[in-house]
Amino acid sequence: MIAIARIRGVLAPVVTPFKADLAPDRQRFIAHCKWLLSQNCGLAVFGTNSEANSLSMEERAMLLDELVAAGVDPARMMPGTGCCSIMETVKLTKQAIGNGCAGVLMLPPFYYKDVSEEGLYRYFSEVVQRVADARLKIYLYHIPPVAVVGITTGLVERLLAAYPNAIAGMKDSSGDWNNTKTFLDAFAARSAGPASTARAARTFDVFVGSESFLLANMRNGGVGTISATANVNPAAIYKLYSQWDTADDADQQQLKLNVVREVFSSRKFPSMIAALKQAIAIYADDPAWRTVRPPLVELTPEQTKTLTAELKAIGFAMPGVRRVSKG
Amino acid sequence: MIAIARIRGVLAPVVTPFKADLAPDRQRFIAHCKWLLSQNCGLAVFGTNSEANSLSMEERAMLLDELVAAGVDPARMMPGTGCCSIMETVKLTKQAIGNGCAGVLMLPPFYYKDVSEEGLYRYFSEVVQRVADARLKIYLYHIPPVAVVGITTGLVERLLAAYPNAIAGMKDSSGDWNNTKTFLDAFAARSAGPASTARAARTFDVFVGSESFLLANMRNGGVGTISATANVNPAAIYKLYSQWDTADDADQQQLKLNVVREVFSSRKFPSMIAALKQAIAIYADDPAWRTVRPPLVELTPEQTKTLTAELKAIGFAMPGVRRVSKG
Repeated sequence: MIAIARIRGVLAPVVTPFKADLAPDRQRFIAHCKWLLSQNCGLAVFGTNSEANSLSMEERAMLLDELVAAGVDPARMMPGTGCCSIMETVKLTKQAIGNGCAGVLMLPPFYYKDVSEEGLYRYFSEVVQRVADARLKIYLYHIPPVAVVGITTGLVERLLAAYPNAIAGMKDSSGDWNNTKTFLDAFAARSAGPASTARAARTFDVFVGSESFLLANMRNGGVGTISATANVNPAAIYKLYSQWDTADDADQQQLKLNVVREVFSSRKFPSMIAALKQAIAIYADDPAWRTVRPPLVELTPEQTKTLTAELKAIGFAMPGVRRVSKG
Repeated sequence: MIAIARIRGVLAPVVTPFKADLAPDRQRFIAHCKWLLSQNCGLAVFGTNSEANSLSMEERAMLLDELVAAGVDPARMMPGTGCCSIMETVKLTKQAIGNGCAGVLMLPPFYYKDVSEEGLYRYFSEVVQRVADARLKIYLYHIPPVAVVGITTGLVERLLAAYPNAIAGMKDSSGDWNNTKTFLDAFAARSAGPASTARAARTFDVFVGSESFLLANMRNGGVGTISATANVNPAAIYKLYSQWDTADDADQQQLKLNVVREVFSSRKFPSMIAALKQAIAIYADDPAWRTVRPPLVELTPEQTKTLTAELKAIGFAMPGVRRVSKG
């Protein structure tokens, strides 16, 4: 017995374009989402790289509705819905599930630090119970470099025991392969092998938060990656995802992905988010894409020159990306 | 020329009571605010100790409106309005200023870490410009143990230069007296002395985030404290505030305040917030006050016994606190 198809593969935490007055740019947002889908890349809208927490609740709700209204398939979406407030998390999650989204990527409440496992368990329990929808699929979002508050194996164990259908997996953005391996070993293998027959119908799907761990993740029972760089390099990442166990050059593909990621994650740039947006601005010939919301800052002209040169040097391209006609 | 009267003295980051279903309890909230005012304690509603970030935007807006409708004087209020999103910060700030609140306590955007001073400057600039109200008085909220993102002297210098009327002061919850002293020396003394005649009309008002630094703050040009413990010990804290430069026993008063604070800040309890609420539950004989929202957890029965005994041992009391008749 196999659970119904889950969302897997390569997803982009979709960068959110803004107009000059910092309002979300729906037209560019929809166009970018459609381009990502054309590259076999799913849509983890409202993630860290989406500046989701710099958006208001209304803006997030509006953008999701616009996306669905534009005909973008919700089965390819995993919106971020985790807020500090249970009430807001429930509201965004209900909207996502109601729209037919494949799942939701859920940050733990990230304002208070040093919170207990019991407190986090209660938080997620309240959310599951208040959403009260059998379609709910939560992917727990572990990103300690940003949220500081993290997801532990003890927490996952308790949540899986209490809500085996609602807890679908996680995104590990710790940047620490040993941590990912710990979760894979503890939970991802439960659907295979004789020791886990009682749980055979369910899996715990681990996505890595960087494609630099994609091959390792797939070789150890993971299901894909939700990675910032998928915003600009989706086809190559998807290629490795789809060929990881068949291609002779899988390790070489991984190394090539790493080269691209290294350019964007350089400390030379104020943030990876700003560098990704600048790259879209360059390759779509659309300077409006540069805009970020404070507290982030866009690349300086000097940094833009550096990024342009470094991408050119590695032969980087974004095939099919075009400037939005107006917006 | 002296600026018009600013809010000063002792303020409580008012703890927010919840019903059993975790909904905010308006009746207990209003009653607690009125009791605090009767103790000469101002109302920094929606602070860290208020579990403000565990509330939704709508709940915060509703509670402030309810408070004003109940006849509580907005001139004694400094609501917390700082969110990760500029749009939400602007919305809450406009509501507070529109209601006639004395000022707003503003967290920096706290999701992204390692943000630049330039990025934070742009964030606060956007807020000031979008609120666009001459009555705006922002108190910058520095609480690195929780928000991680902090307020630097360089940032204050730039903001004061650009928005001398809107930037009114700060709350320093670093717990580091050297940091408070740095801000006092850099900004609080600007209204006095021959070197600062150009800025004589304005002051930068420094509140300490713990009454354990109250006497030191007052002796060095500060204006008061916004402290969690003021929720339960307001009269004694106000006494020191009002007598710091006249009472012979000011240092002894400070030591006695510290004894009370040490009980509540003990690592024996899951959080100071839960301990404060438990104390109100005990002294108002009103168990409903124990409730906290996840990810926080309330005190266990064993911890409650410990708190009860320790408060009894130091002769602690909350004169005039009463159980709300129904709610």
